[in-house]
Amino acid sequence: MKATILTIGNEILKGRTVNTNFSHIGHVLTFAGYEVYRGLVVRDDPSEIAWGITQATGFSDLVVTSGGLGPTFDDMSVKAIADALGIPLETNADALKMIREKYSAQNMELTPERMKMAMLPRNAEAITNPVGTAPGVFFSYRGVRILILPGVPSEMKAILESMIPRIRISTVHYYEESVVLNGIMESAFAPVVADEMKKAGGSVYIKSHPSSAELSNPVLEIEVSGTAQDDATAVKVVRTTLENIKKKHQEMLNKK
Amino acid sequence: MKATILTIGNEILKGRTVNTNFSHIGHVLTFAGYEVYRGLVVRDDPSEIAWGITQATGFSDLVVTSGGLGPTFDDMSVKAIADALGIPLETNADALKMIREKYSAQNMELTPERMKMAMLPRNAEAITNPVGTAPGVFFSYRGVRILILPGVPSEMKAILESMIPRIRISTVHYYEESVVLNGIMESAFAPVVADEMKKAGGSVYIKSHPSSAELSNPVLEIEVSGTAQDDATAVKVVRTTLENIKKKHQEMLNKK
Repeated sequence: MKATILTIGNEILKGRTVNTNFSHIGHVLTFAGYEVYRGLVVRDDPSEIAWGITQATGFSDLVVTSGGLGPTFDDMSVKAIADALGIPLETNADALKMIREKYSAQNMELTPERMKMAMLPRNAEAITNPVGTAPGVFFSYRGVRILILPGVPSEMKAILESMIPRIRISTVHYYEESVVLNGIMESAFAPVVADEMKKAGGSVYIKSHPSSAELSNPVLEIEVSGTAQDDATAVKVVRTTLENIKKKHQEMLNKK
Repeated sequence: MKATILTIGNEILKGRTVNTNFSHIGHVLTFAGYEVYRGLVVRDDPSEIAWGITQATGFSDLVVTSGGLGPTFDDMSVKAIADALGIPLETNADALKMIREKYSAQNMELTPERMKMAMLPRNAEAITNPVGTAPGVFFSYRGVRILILPGVPSEMKAILESMIPRIRISTVHYYEESVVLNGIMESAFAPVVADEMKKAGGSVYIKSHPSSAELSNPVLEIEVSGTAQDDATAVKVVRTTLENIKKKHQEMLNKK
């Protein structure tokens, strides 16, 4: 099943903020059994958010968005997404209750800016935000599940965590493990990687990450990942390939 | 002028690697006068790279890609981009010279995997990689400029740095400055932000970033950015707005 991550925020595009939300969501979805298929980053602009959600729902089984979910003028994700998909916004009773409780506990009034966070797409579900005020939003659109998360990392993480049991694909188990190889260049090791991929017949994927400039002092991280119907099989196919790779590396060093 | 960043790499989608390349490129392009318009992240797969470059060239004046530019089987960016755009690949004499010099300095042979890095789209320019082996690639396609960079951060940065004088928009000067406000909630400050945006009449953009959970101990960073035809004007409009914001913040604290 394919998942797409849609990040909303000018600060990401301008490079002011490193998109750690993206990598966190990507990691969680991968281990939940999804193929994280594509990523999109768009500005805080309703027509841009509309472009992003229209694209993403066209090629995904699950879309997770982050950003633009607070009380300020540029927090426009929920309305822009609902408008783009043609779903009316309504005051969500659960969301309103969550928001009212948060603010009244602090003896603060529900301003129009704060009330906005309770306007959700019709039939959407408000997901408790244990850390902040804006609830997450979860709904289905033409068979695609959409999860709208805030951009504040602690809030995004807490809501996503609570959703894992509901979005997890129980029949797909993912495993990855890496090994760091010294003294070998990526280009010299490339044939071994290609050969091991072939031998494993599609059950594993190998990627090499040179962590220093190739020529001077080569350090190469080899990442092996695989999916299977259960954890034990996924671990086994990955480890078998890793052992072959270590053996080949040793042989190449011995030849030097 | 609109710039799009296309990141290529499974490790980004799976959350194994945080996309610091994206934020670096976004920062450089913003200060070079571009509106960084959209970001796309795709897998190491020729059809996915084709999708990304086709999309990006459809809505951008400049496309900067990173990733997939080395000697291994999954380094397929240049060929996939050229194929997608219908441009034939040819051995580029400059690129071949660069690569040959790098390897021969280390007394290493030019394997087919290494030679691959000299196959560039016809009429493309090879850009010296001062840190690693794979040259950057620069060319125009139907009025869109395309810069293909490696994924290794030090190599990406060095090549991009060398290209700034050639891609910089001399008539657009960007400036941004932030202030951190304590003791005020984002939702409480939202009307001030909206008001100041209105007063500046489109010359500045203000974004608030709550850096802690809103309710408990509010810390709010206010980022003001603006563009003008020269540096001095850009700085002036941003600082004027910042001063207004600080004054309003003080007034709100005094009222508490």
